[in-house]
Amino acid sequence: MAASALLRSLSRVSRRGCAPASYGRGPFSPFSSAAAAAAAGDAGDGAVLPRGLAGLGPTGKGEKARVVVLGTGWAGSRLMKDLDTSGYDVVCVSPRNHMVFTPLLASTCVGTLEFRSVAEPLARIQPAVSSSPGSYFLLARCTAVDPDAHTIDCETVTEGEKDTLKPWKFKVSYDKLVFGCGAEASTFGIRGVTEHATFLREVHHAQEIRRKLLLNLMLSDVPGISEDEKRRLLHCVVVGGGPTGVEFSGELSDFIIRDVKERYSHVKDYVHVTLIEANEILSSFDVRLRQYAINQLVKSGVRLVQGIVKDVQPDKLILDNGEEVPYGLLVWSTGVGASSFVKSLPFPKSAGGRIGVDEWLRVPSVPDVFAVGDCCGFLESTGKEVLPALAQVAERQGLYLARLLNSVMKAGGGHANSQVEVDLGPKFVYKHLGSMATVGRYKALVDLRQSKGSKGISIAGFASWFIWRSAYLTRVVSWRNRLYVAINWLTTMIFGRDISRI
Amino acid sequence: MAASALLRSLSRVSRRGCAPASYGRGPFSPFSSAAAAAAAGDAGDGAVLPRGLAGLGPTGKGEKARVVVLGTGWAGSRLMKDLDTSGYDVVCVSPRNHMVFTPLLASTCVGTLEFRSVAEPLARIQPAVSSSPGSYFLLARCTAVDPDAHTIDCETVTEGEKDTLKPWKFKVSYDKLVFGCGAEASTFGIRGVTEHATFLREVHHAQEIRRKLLLNLMLSDVPGISEDEKRRLLHCVVVGGGPTGVEFSGELSDFIIRDVKERYSHVKDYVHVTLIEANEILSSFDVRLRQYAINQLVKSGVRLVQGIVKDVQPDKLILDNGEEVPYGLLVWSTGVGASSFVKSLPFPKSAGGRIGVDEWLRVPSVPDVFAVGDCCGFLESTGKEVLPALAQVAERQGLYLARLLNSVMKAGGGHANSQVEVDLGPKFVYKHLGSMATVGRYKALVDLRQSKGSKGISIAGFASWFIWRSAYLTRVVSWRNRLYVAINWLTTMIFGRDISRI
Repeated sequence: MAASALLRSLSRVSRRGCAPASYGRGPFSPFSSAAAAAAAGDAGDGAVLPRGLAGLGPTGKGEKARVVVLGTGWAGSRLMKDLDTSGYDVVCVSPRNHMVFTPLLASTCVGTLEFRSVAEPLARIQPAVSSSPGSYFLLARCTAVDPDAHTIDCETVTEGEKDTLKPWKFKVSYDKLVFGCGAEASTFGIRGVTEHATFLREVHHAQEIRRKLLLNLMLSDVPGISEDEKRRLLHCVVVGGGPTGVEFSGELSDFIIRDVKERYSHVKDYVHVTLIEANEILSSFDVRLRQYAINQLVKSGVRLVQGIVKDVQPDKLILDNGEEVPYGLLVWSTGVGASSFVKSLPFPKSAGGRIGVDEWLRVPSVPDVFAVGDCCGFLESTGKEVLPALAQVAERQGLYLARLLNSVMKAGGGHANSQVEVDLGPKFVYKHLGSMATVGRYKALVDLRQSKGSKGISIAGFASWFIWRSAYLTRVVSWRNRLYVAINWLTTMIFGRDISRI
Repeated sequence: MAASALLRSLSRVSRRGCAPASYGRGPFSPFSSAAAAAAAGDAGDGAVLPRGLAGLGPTGKGEKARVVVLGTGWAGSRLMKDLDTSGYDVVCVSPRNHMVFTPLLASTCVGTLEFRSVAEPLARIQPAVSSSPGSYFLLARCTAVDPDAHTIDCETVTEGEKDTLKPWKFKVSYDKLVFGCGAEASTFGIRGVTEHATFLREVHHAQEIRRKLLLNLMLSDVPGISEDEKRRLLHCVVVGGGPTGVEFSGELSDFIIRDVKERYSHVKDYVHVTLIEANEILSSFDVRLRQYAINQLVKSGVRLVQGIVKDVQPDKLILDNGEEVPYGLLVWSTGVGASSFVKSLPFPKSAGGRIGVDEWLRVPSVPDVFAVGDCCGFLESTGKEVLPALAQVAERQGLYLARLLNSVMKAGGGHANSQVEVDLGPKFVYKHLGSMATVGRYKALVDLRQSKGSKGISIAGFASWFIWRSAYLTRVVSWRNRLYVAINWLTTMIFGRDISRI
């Protein structure tokens, strides 16, 4: 169905013309070890010492071509999983060494699942990064791109660790560069969101939510805390009625109904959940499913509020109608937008400020550069709409681009600035497989319509919940985590959720 | 065998004489809610507002007596588990809401076991704290004791959490008070230990070690890092050759042999473990087992160094012979000593500064006050030696004191300053059951001699390792964690250790 095209002259600059002078060739070009010792020994001082930028130099003709992937989300991880490592070296640059199975992240906040059960180390997804001589996982952030020189600048990520290496800068040459660096949580410029609310996008967010929830449950039991203060501490407010917000509210209400009643019986009557949404809840779902979700949430004690948050303070938020909502825990899940790094890139942009790509996920004016997942969007010139920031979009794009790059490599176009003609194959076409969301205690929604307007199957209830669990269980990447997710679900049913605050 | 005695007049002061005036009676006496709101709203300011000290007032004649337990270690947890809650209310004051199964903590640092598998929430050990109306778990630290008024001062523990309640002070009246607040890691006043080394006593220590180990493995793979710096980052130094230090070294070497070779093949030759001990390794074990342990450790690549650490700097430590040892990870496990809180208490002390107790674990001059575990030691007047800081000593003392307090309660002496005669039963006598330690890859030591000088069974090798695993598996408190420990061991064997740095 999809059209195919010839990729003429993957680049304008010839290979020879772009050999950088500032750093050496070959896998490693270490700077002098005296300088290294000086830099490392000076850990008490915040200043960055001048260093030569060492790095991974350009690949030679006889060597494998190098695909540099920025990010370990759904798109990047799927891409790396399916890249043909017989012809490509894979170098991944990301601030985290694992992929997060995001649809199950909300379940980890209350202990239904364990954190590690939803985190998949990249080395398990693509073993080459830890075993192949030219492939690497680099715990770092990309800070700049030089498309002409075919290099990126990187800096290691060591936040929150004492006595370790200071941020270390280096360069990496690429033959192909793939942006899979995702998006940022939207705050709409509302004051106090970043400071006082917790997002729900990374494992450390879920850990923060769990620690805070358990802390507030314990603090509210301390003698002398006033009734008002108890009610505030145990008021969990979720802003954003998309699948993440709804699933988290559902998990919370299930936690309260099942575990808080039993484990925190002194304070059980003070715990409440409020879900605030500016428009309508689960707007992408069928209207019947939406009504079902609303009924289920209300039945399980979630207070639904339609409103716009104007201001967030340490212990309360203010709605646009002036209402003050005191809270003990505030979770912010109002969707995502282009990150500041993506905004800073000198590339064409799609609507919403994402990296603009053509139908083959190429950044059209920049040779050998591609983008997948939440950080990219179709350019207006393609006549296609920007796809939603969904795991299934990202995963499908990763898979598509892996196949494209593999066939480019097989046609001899793997290296940078290759002057070969390659059939890129069909364009990327997204077919929505449907949406799922749980709404607490053995209830879920499954909407198998391809788009909002179209017809199709949509079901809600226990059967959906069973489909939801089964579908995700089969999607979890490794057998190890599949086993752990199943066992976590089992022990939560038998023993209840774990409440140690570690 | 053990002598029995009559407890005459559990106290000198009559009950009526000690009713405190500064705070109310009954389970809660909240201060005005206006003051609470003001205090809570002012989260940006570090100053502690003046507040009335609310709290748990003295129990009435018709009510259950209240046992206040400080700490959730081996001693306190076992005590609370076995207290008869039909006659006692249990109030636990501790900075953590779980007990740590310490013998398996070293295994969590490299991912052989998960953190939650070795943490047991107190509510699972003694459900009364979360369900019984007069029993509580309070996430707080005791700051002062008033033995005459039969009260303790407490302050909530909220370290590392933003936007929560400020440290909150309150009082708790006790009928019986039990110190089970443990000991502190010894640093021998060596400069830099607290700042740069990690102890191995709490789950958060193990988490810190795991994060740092994985960070260093990844950083050492970054382009441009010098050979010296790689070697430093991947040099793990353990100070202290007791069971904890040896087990951690063994786990580390197993992790290196099995997992690092496969998952970090680029840097595998740079990883080294050094174990530094001032005297001899595993000094409490049979000489034959000691030799076996040394052979095993050396065989698996651990460098053993006899030396005394003089100074610890961010990236190296200095031995007394002047040798400089660069390190990337430094774990300090040289034993424990009396904590500053214990030292500050106006009680008689045993050798080593611990709370002095008689043969019934009472603090003799202070009515209704007891101590168990690492924080206590026999007074010189008892003619007994201070017992070693071991889990089995602490657990046995907790069990002993629970029985003693239960029989006191049944004889009508449960309340503070009871003027009744109670048979306290036999004195506490400690019988050592033996020691165990793993030394890596399917090897362990089991020493069943009752003391260092005596004769008895001592074995080493795979059989010991099997005994070690089985013995600990049966000792893990809950069925949930027993299941998880077994599954963790199984998946580590099948899939290797998890390396996501979350």
